[in-house]
Amino acid sequence: MPELSHVDSAGAARMVDVSTKEASVRTAVATGLLRTTAEVIGLLRRDGLPKGDALAVARVAGIMGAKRTPDLVPLCHPIALHGVTVEFDVSDTEIGITVTARTADRTGVEMEALTAVAAAGLTLIDMVKAVDPGAELDAVRCESKEGGKTGSWHR
Amino acid sequence: MPELSHVDSAGAARMVDVSTKEASVRTAVATGLLRTTAEVIGLLRRDGLPKGDALAVARVAGIMGAKRTPDLVPLCHPIALHGVTVEFDVSDTEIGITVTARTADRTGVEMEALTAVAAAGLTLIDMVKAVDPGAELDAVRCESKEGGKTGSWHR
Amino acid sequence: MPELSHVDSAGAARMVDVSTKEASVRTAVATGLLRTTAEVIGLLRRDGLPKGDALAVARVAGIMGAKRTPDLVPLCHPIALHGVTVEFDVSDTEIGITVTARTADRTGVEMEALTAVAAAGLTLIDMVKAVDPGAELDAVRCESKEGGKTGSWHR
Amino acid sequence: MPELSHVDSAGAARMVDVSTKEASVRTAVATGLLRTTAEVIGLLRRDGLPKGDALAVARVAGIMGAKRTPDLVPLCHPIALHGVTVEFDVSDTEIGITVTARTADRTGVEMEALTAVAAAGLTLIDMVKAVDPGAELDAVRCESKEGGKTGSWHR
Amino acid sequence: MPELSHVDSAGAARMVDVSTKEASVRTAVATGLLRTTAEVIGLLRRDGLPKGDALAVARVAGIMGAKRTPDLVPLCHPIALHGVTVEFDVSDTEIGITVTARTADRTGVEMEALTAVAAAGLTLIDMVKAVDPGAELDAVRCESKEGGKTGSWHR
Amino acid sequence: MPELSHVDSAGAARMVDVSTKEASVRTAVATGLLRTTAEVIGLLRRDGLPKGDALAVARVAGIMGAKRTPDLVPLCHPIALHGVTVEFDVSDTEIGITVTARTADRTGVEMEALTAVAAAGLTLIDMVKAVDPGAELDAVRCESKEGGKTGSWHR
Repeated sequence: MPELSHVDSAGAARMVDVSTKEASVRTAVATGLLRTTAEVIGLLRRDGLPKGDALAVARVAGIMGAKRTPDLVPLCHPIALHGVTVEFDVSDTEIGITVTARTADRTGVEMEALTAVAAAGLTLIDMVKAVDPGAELDAVRCESKEGGKTGSWHR
Repeated sequence: MPELSHVDSAGAARMVDVSTKEASVRTAVATGLLRTTAEVIGLLRRDGLPKGDALAVARVAGIMGAKRTPDLVPLCHPIALHGVTVEFDVSDTEIGITVTARTADRTGVEMEALTAVAAAGLTLIDMVKAVDPGAELDAVRCESKEGGKTGSWHR
Repeated sequence: MPELSHVDSAGAARMVDVSTKEASVRTAVATGLLRTTAEVIGLLRRDGLPKGDALAVARVAGIMGAKRTPDLVPLCHPIALHGVTVEFDVSDTEIGITVTARTADRTGVEMEALTAVAAAGLTLIDMVKAVDPGAELDAVRCESKEGGKTGSWHR
Repeated sequence: MPELSHVDSAGAARMVDVSTKEASVRTAVATGLLRTTAEVIGLLRRDGLPKGDALAVARVAGIMGAKRTPDLVPLCHPIALHGVTVEFDVSDTEIGITVTARTADRTGVEMEALTAVAAAGLTLIDMVKAVDPGAELDAVRCESKEGGKTGSWHR
Repeated sequence: MPELSHVDSAGAARMVDVSTKEASVRTAVATGLLRTTAEVIGLLRRDGLPKGDALAVARVAGIMGAKRTPDLVPLCHPIALHGVTVEFDVSDTEIGITVTARTADRTGVEMEALTAVAAAGLTLIDMVKAVDPGAELDAVRCESKEGGKTGSWHR
Repeated sequence: MPELSHVDSAGAARMVDVSTKEASVRTAVATGLLRTTAEVIGLLRRDGLPKGDALAVARVAGIMGAKRTPDLVPLCHPIALHGVTVEFDVSDTEIGITVTARTADRTGVEMEALTAVAAAGLTLIDMVKAVDPGAELDAVRCESKEGGKTGSWHR
């Protein structure tokens, strides 16, 4: 029967022991979507997309956010993060966020990829909120992961 | 004409000067939605909802995440966070997340409320991902804010 | 003659070089004791022990505190923390805290286990201080460690 | 009837709202006791007490630990820490730790003083553990607090 | 006679008590200079100066570094940082860094401005080190400060 | 043609993938120079150099700063820091800072050594600024690195 791995049989939270798991190269891709207004996208473009500071700040926030995952997600293991890319796909009223995270460690990196998406998305909201206080971060989710004992998973 | 406040006229990112703004009591409410499966909700309920560690861990993650906002969102001011509550509304395949944040400081607390929602949501994904790797965090957004010079805003 | 490893022959503090030590599975158990009043224990029990948020918050604080060890203890190496459990044993006027920490790295994990005990204990004091301002954290100490070149040690 | 302030009536953890409390000068004194061996105390003295790096490292750890309180203790408010002193009283087999913390903010600083004691104590254990793996941190507790609405409290 | 304010009469480090100082608007300007090669500057320009990610990353690092001052500088008070700008002046073989920091708090912000300069400078070194491993950060210093009891100071 | 490794062909910042690089022992030495006044050096000496808290605080700041490198330098990988020493060379109006950092990991440790120099230097400035507000940190640079695929490099 499936079980929540992060709580023991008595329901107590724990950081699951992975000390005997094999270190191996693992990759995860996560995505999210900032929904805002055409006016905001226009302002971002005027700031010189794809090179303006606005997107660069959000990209940096994503990369640094990936490094902060064990500080934010209580039961996550601190892992050796070996590579992170953050891509934005700007359309009329939305900015797609795609993060790829890599490690050669004992656990998967999907939480790192997801945290990077969230940090980039929150930073975009912060950047546009004076103009669009209703901006929304949607569909933060894992798209795929590779490596480790469980192997590949695709949405 | 509306402008992105976090970049100057040359497009350079900055932390906007708020030293001359008045400190006043401000409140923000933000929400989000974890979409998962009925099986996961069943497991969470079996862990003793609403008292099980699973939700408690996510609630703590939300509160601590609010305190980490200036670490995660690059241009956010570090503010004196004066109150945070995190509520969950568990239904058949979803968990609604509602965060209320309060401060008596010079800037609004919507980013703190939003960051708490994201941290709680990411923690829930972490908790359930062994059973539902496709769990998704949706609709992270500000619902309302009160206080400060701009006054009340409701979605 | 025994020496304090963290200071050199001139007395200067240093982070000791462990780059040539072998990585191996290591475990440490640390304990501590929160001394409070029967009234406080009663309130905690009313909050639904062993499942209430009060203990869950302290358990999360312990696990997250273990991850913060290198931030708190200046000369500690940042290590790959691979597993942490925090158990509470609630009696009439005391709460026993037991933490087990595991790693497969180059140094022992006793500081991580001890820091988790301290963080959980401080959080319990914070939780009860409105009712019992005199609550006390006692006997924070290492009980045993396994693994590494020096092998097993038991109190 | 007394209540645990950090959980609501349903038992859910929260950061209590203090936005309407008055900022005022507050002081807290906390203490703790490192119990070790005469051999360790001798080594510390040979390192030139009270000026050697060993105690200086622990003192710095205490001061920096006070600043980390809201990172370690989940429901603690981040406050404006305005002064911290850490004193050591070295006797034959013990080191007494006394921390005084001050703020002019909306909540008391006893958790900051206690966290400083714990951080200094953990650092002392780390410093001596190669010689005395059984060193113990005892009696971490608040001695007194001044200021705020509740006024003075002494153990 | 002048004294080092951060150590007491016995030479012990402390966080000086500022709880009774007046909060007031304070500004500090700090500068630094990255010395590198014409080749590196050429590569940075090709990356689209002044809009490329390279400088944006360093600017964000400076702003975030300012917020980390109390984590890095042990005896610094955590203060309410109210505004930070980071400017770069790119010439043939150098990049000038100028940071202005503002607060309305009880202590000066020169350490925040200086830490921002250092973080931006270190980030520039990191960015260029594959091409110029000898890049150097020079002349990190306070240029001026305004506000507070001691009033204006200019180099 | 040489390239900035931290930006991709479109100029976007990234954390470069090192998951397939070999872990090996690596060392880096970085230095810097605090320029101050003879009066300040006199005060530091009176505080009991080389054992006084003033230098000890800066040494601890350097060691802890090395551990904070991935928090400060956005595109730096979090690595397993295995050894750090911080040495000071005090002359009439200057304090030389030398940091040696070691790891057995997939990337070099020059950024860790440089960040330690910067943190120690900023802490010295903080320590002396009440007496010498014009103190300056100069010549922060890598002196040498050993290990890894690129082998030895000396200035």
